[in-house]
Formats: sequence, C-alpha cells, structure tokens
Amino acid sequence: MTREQLTALEQELSTKFEQYKKAGLNLDLTRGKPAGQQLDLSNGLDGLLQGNYKSGDGTDTRNYGGLDGLPEMKALAGQMMGVKPAEVVIGGNSSLTLMYQFMMHAHFWGPLGKGSAWNEGSVRPKFICNVPGYDRHFTICEDLGIEMISVELKDDGPDMDAIEKLVRNDPSIKGMWCVPKHSNPTGHIYSDAVVERIAKLAKIAGSAFVVMWDNAYAVHDFGDNVPELANLMEHARKNGTENSIVITASTSKITFAGAGISFLGASEEILKHFKKRLTAITIGPDKVNQLRHLRMIKDMNDVTALMKQHAAILKPKFEMVLKILEQELGGKGIATWTIPTGGYFVSFDIPGLAKEVVKLSAEAGVKLTPAGSTYPYMKDPQDKNIRIAPSFPSLKEIEPAMNVFVTCVQLAHVRNLLVKNQ
Amino acid sequence: MTREQLTALEQELSTKFEQYKKAGLNLDLTRGKPAGQQLDLSNGLDGLLQGNYKSGDGTDTRNYGGLDGLPEMKALAGQMMGVKPAEVVIGGNSSLTLMYQFMMHAHFWGPLGKGSAWNEGSVRPKFICNVPGYDRHFTICEDLGIEMISVELKDDGPDMDAIEKLVRNDPSIKGMWCVPKHSNPTGHIYSDAVVERIAKLAKIAGSAFVVMWDNAYAVHDFGDNVPELANLMEHARKNGTENSIVITASTSKITFAGAGISFLGASEEILKHFKKRLTAITIGPDKVNQLRHLRMIKDMNDVTALMKQHAAILKPKFEMVLKILEQELGGKGIATWTIPTGGYFVSFDIPGLAKEVVKLSAEAGVKLTPAGSTYPYMKDPQDKNIRIAPSFPSLKEIEPAMNVFVTCVQLAHVRNLLVKNQ
Repeated sequence: MTREQLTALEQELSTKFEQYKKAGLNLDLTRGKPAGQQLDLSNGLDGLLQGNYKSGDGTDTRNYGGLDGLPEMKALAGQMMGVKPAEVVIGGNSSLTLMYQFMMHAHFWGPLGKGSAWNEGSVRPKFICNVPGYDRHFTICEDLGIEMISVELKDDGPDMDAIEKLVRNDPSIKGMWCVPKHSNPTGHIYSDAVVERIAKLAKIAGSAFVVMWDNAYAVHDFGDNVPELANLMEHARKNGTENSIVITASTSKITFAGAGISFLGASEEILKHFKKRLTAITIGPDKVNQLRHLRMIKDMNDVTALMKQHAAILKPKFEMVLKILEQELGGKGIATWTIPTGGYFVSFDIPGLAKEVVKLSAEAGVKLTPAGSTYPYMKDPQDKNIRIAPSFPSLKEIEPAMNVFVTCVQLAHVRNLLVKNQ
Repeated sequence: MTREQLTALEQELSTKFEQYKKAGLNLDLTRGKPAGQQLDLSNGLDGLLQGNYKSGDGTDTRNYGGLDGLPEMKALAGQMMGVKPAEVVIGGNSSLTLMYQFMMHAHFWGPLGKGSAWNEGSVRPKFICNVPGYDRHFTICEDLGIEMISVELKDDGPDMDAIEKLVRNDPSIKGMWCVPKHSNPTGHIYSDAVVERIAKLAKIAGSAFVVMWDNAYAVHDFGDNVPELANLMEHARKNGTENSIVITASTSKITFAGAGISFLGASEEILKHFKKRLTAITIGPDKVNQLRHLRMIKDMNDVTALMKQHAAILKPKFEMVLKILEQELGGKGIATWTIPTGGYFVSFDIPGLAKEVVKLSAEAGVKLTPAGSTYPYMKDPQDKNIRIAPSFPSLKEIEPAMNVFVTCVQLAHVRNLLVKNQ
C-alpha cells in the first residue's frame, strides 16, 4: 500500500472507531466464566438429595469427617484425572485452593517431607511457566516468592528442549505449571511425545521437582474428534517418576463454577505428606455437595453427556469469534490466533500492539483482559498476546464486541505502519 | 477408710469392671459431633432454593466471584461475631481452615504486612494456649512451628495476671488462642473484666499480637439464662487495639457440621492484608451454600429458634452425664468436673489418674478422648484432664457409658490409694 492508501484506510477505520465510541457499548470479553445458560444445566443439583444425606458407603455426609472425600467421589475424580482412587484428594469448591495448598506445602515443608522443602536452600526457588498461560498460577508463585521463568508454549505443548536444558543447568528450578488440554489461553493439547518427556523431567530435575498439571479442561471438548491427552501418571509410573506429578481438576466448568467439587491427584507417597498439612487445615471438605454431584454425574458417561450440552452452547460462540477474525483479518498478515477444539479461550497474537489494541477496544466499549496478563509479572516481552474469552457474553453481544475488536486491531496496525514509515 | 475397707471396695469395683468387660460394650464419648437428630433439624437445606440461585443483591451464586462472601451472609455473620459487615470474610465449610489460613498468613507474611511477620525474627514465635483447650488449635501451631505456652484457664477465663506478665517479658509471644464462650472443653464463659483485659493485651504485647477468638459456641446455649459474652471488638475499639483481634465462628453446629458456612471477623486493616493472601488462594467461597443458609436462617431470630431445638436434644444428654457423675462421685473428693450452660463438652479433672481412667474405660468398652489431648504437645502436666463429649451418642448409650466411666474413675482412685499406702 502507498502512504496515501494507508492514510485513507486509517481515516476509514478511525471513523468506524469513533462511531463505536459514540454508540456507548459496554461489552466484556474478559471473563473465563460459564454463561447463565450453561449453569442452568445443573440447576437440578439443589434438591437432588430429597432428605437422604447418606452416601453409598453409609457415611452421614452432613457430619464432620472424611479428610480426603467420599470413596465414590474419589473414584469418579480418579477417572477424570487418570489416577487410582487412592491417589485422589477431594477439596472444596476451588481447585485453585488445592493448588495453593500444595504449592505452599511443597515450598515450606517439601513435597516429600523433611529435606525436600523448596525454600530450604540459599537460592530462591524457581518455577517454569509455559506462556502464554494462566495468571492465577503466576499469582501463587508470586505470593510464595517463587521466581518464574517463562518458556514459550508451542503448538504441541511446552518447548521441551528448552525446559530440559533449563532444569539440567539450574537445580533451583522446582517445578512447572501446565494446562495440558485446551490450554489457557491457547487451546493447545499437549502431544503424546511431549507428555512422555514431561513425565521424565524429574529424572533430570531431581526428586523435589513437581509438575503442576492443571487439567481444568479435561472433558471440555467442543466436538467428538478432539485428540486425546496422554495419561501423565501412566507415563510417570513407567519411568518411576510418579512422585513428581500433581494433577488438579474440578467440576467448576461442569456443574457450578463457584459451587463445584475440586480434586487433586498424586502418588500415595506425595499424598501421605500433603495430608499431614490437610489434617492441620481442615476437618474435611463439604461431603453434602459431593453427594449432590454424585447423584447428578454418577459416572463418566453422565459427565460426557453433560459436557455435550455445554459444547452446544459454547461452540457457536467460538465459531462467531473465529468467523469475524477470519473475515476481517484473514490473510492480511496482521495477526495470528488459535482455533481451539475445546476450553474457554481464543489466544490472539499481534506483536508489539497488544496493549494498544486492548486500550483502543476499551475506549470503544469492549473490555478485554489486560495485555500482559498471560505472562508472569504481567510482562509479555513482545507485547503480543491477547486472551479472548467468549463464554460468558451472549452471541448477540459477541458479534458487536468482535466487530469492535477487529476494527481496533486494524486501526492499531495501520497507525503503527504510518508511524514507522514516517 | 481402713486398708481392709479399701481392699474390699477395690474387689467390688473390680468385679463390676470385669462384668463390663465381659458385656463387650462399644461406646464412644470422644467426638464433639452433633447427633443425627440435630442434623435432621436442617434437612430442609437441600432443595430450599427451588431453582432460584440469585441472591438479594442480584448475584448469580452459581458462578465465580465474591472473594469475601455475599453481603447478606456478611451481615448475619457480623451480628453473630459482634463486628461490622465490612469486617467479615466468609469462608468455606470449615472455620478451622480460616484459622489456619490466618495463622499461616500472620506467620509468614505478617498480620499487618511487611515487617510484621511472626517468623521474621531470630527467635521462634510463641503462642499462649489456655488449657485445657482445643487440640486443633494446638495442631495449627505445631504445623507452623509456633511454640506453645500453656496457661491454666480459670472459671472466669484466662489467667490474665499470668498472661500480662508473660507478654510483657517476652516479645516473641505473638498471640493467644481463646474459646471464649462454652469453652472447649470446660464450658466456661469469659467474664466481662477478662474480655476487657484481653482487648488491652496488644498495648503490652505490640502491634503484631493477635488474639485468635474462636467463638465456635457463640449461640450454643442450653437455656435462656446463660451469661452474655462481652463484645471483644467493641472493647478493642475503645482501646485502639482492633488490629489485634481475629474472631472466627461458623454454622457447623447450627446447620450441618460438615457442610456449613464459616466466617472470620477482623478490622478492615487486618482484612486488607489477609485478603491479599485469599486472592492467591481462592476465587471465592461457595455462594450457593451461603444462599441456602440465608433462606433457612435469615436473621438472628431464626438462629436462636434453631438453637433452642438443638438445646432440647443436647440438654438431656448433659443432664444424664452430670446426674451420674454427681450420684456416683459427688462429695467423695476424688474428682471435679464442670457444669456447662452450653457448648459440647464436660471437662473432668482427676489429678494423676487421667491416663489410667481413659485406659480402664477403653478396656471396658468406652472410648474417651486420649488423656493429654486438651494440652499442647499432649502434655497434661498433672495428668488430670478428661474431655467428655456426650453430644453424638444417644441417651441410651450415654447412661451405660457413664456408668462404666464412674466405675473406672473409682477403681483407678482406690487402686492408687492402695499403692500409695503400701
């Protein structure tokens, strides 16, 4: 394009942008929250018990006790995480809490007890964060004073060459955060080869190394042909590294986001130490809510059937996002984005302009997650990544929001070209 | 009594004891758990929502969010704890978890942020435990590596002369555990004068000092004429020490022991720091369960009415315990015990013989909380205290259990006299 053509295009986009501003839109693409329609699918949860609070094994769920959850809940959670029921601890309504508790436990007390505490040495412990990633993982590290090292996530999962090199050279690296399926925010699913290499990491990194495997989107597929995620614990067992694996998941995006059941899977050896901490922290998680969940989703077939209903609501929203991105930005070489097969996010990359796009969108009435949020310390080195979360708004809101977004993307790009070519 | 009389009595009691052993009883007075009949009072909780999950302020309780709880829940919890709604954080099903989280926060990060962490100095932090007390409090201190100092609880509350002297002389004392009403296990209620002196403690002890005020039995009276507990926060406000107060309570012994709502009350300054930790730990507590509770107990009148129904079940059990103690041991000078006006326990003192009585009772088929449990490190210096928990068993079980107990008490005493007089 000539400078004249660019200036004309800038004018055109600016006019459109000003129109959006005047329209006084108030749209929100920030939140990885299920929509009300999805939550409605589980409205039957309250009242399911009909006065019968006894679990299958005769436990009165209303009373105290049961540190690690009802046996039936442990069995179902074990299936979801690919571990044995004896390798499961049931938590409260938040898997984030289980992650924090485990990280705190490993940091101050050690994943394998005496002598394994991450904060014991003179060097500050470090953690690998695959980026772009989930800000709540970063917050846990920051809170505990664990230094974060960013490693770029590839299409098939973490950059294992880089990671193996890092842990080989730096014994203060104590673990790694992973969202292995429908990764937050890229939607990537780790390949079998990568999962196998992750399972072997502890052989290089040492016995206190922990892979925090946040499988938050384990069953959250949009369709039937989604590649299966390899079973990390099985690979670890083959390699004798099962004490380096901590898996978390929950029903937050299956039933109720704020009132579901969370779980953690790890070897019995790892759990033996973790349960010492739990014994001091709690008398046990809410068993009544576990029982309600077991009445609604008694096995994996029930889970799959429910997730199909979620997909029917979510898929059109993602299709709308991707359609508008493709229509307005496709083939222009301005930006790239992911095409997820499940999960809650589309990851959008526009090197050097992420902050500007988020700022322009906000001015035009569309709220986006702050640029940088998907990187530790809010520092996206290339200022490129934007997380788009279309689950909560309605289709009717997503369409105008995305139209604003693509306008802002093009406006930022064209203005940038004009500045560069001055 | 002459030696002959004593020997005859020992024979008689031994015969009785052997008969109990043969009867193969299996009774349990260990657990401070509500009975099924009490839990039945709240069976209506599940199903109360009837598909309407919106709270009074329009929040969709099913979704994420709300770090410190629903406004209505904070208002009710504030009334129960005697603090303002803005001074409340709502937790999950376990106030123990809130206590642990706060203690962890104060220990590693500091109740007032930078410079106030208990573990910062070169000296190990210490905590005052009023004894006999609650073993779960001791476990939290042990877990965090906080040294415990026992101070004998008097009828009107902690021995304030001793405590004021301790904190004056030792700046490494960072706080104190209290169960101020129907104390676990003695049943004592702290007097107004003692509450006022506790509120003033931080003036001596310094700004990082925290009174952990576990008001677990705030509304758990057996009758109408129970002395009121003074409002600690009000006293603290008058003295400018409100940053030294952390109050906890829950509905565990109001609705469901394992599936209730917990809360923590503290100054807004203290909560500002604590919420930083909570932000890393959780996205928020279960709001659906809060809403259920609000539909069942919408105000303090509802709470009081429900607690009267609990009292109607609990009171006869305590009367049975006290009747048998009085009948069989009254006036004999062997032992002393408390006469609670609420709560969950009777505290029984038999200096030098607590372990022996627990052992004999177990042999005769009656399980009691291990002797020493009511003291830090399981060390009852006089081997005197036994906690009797009559809430969970039925009246039909309590009667034979207490008959066994008083037989074992007398047998231990007589045998001890015989040994001493040899």
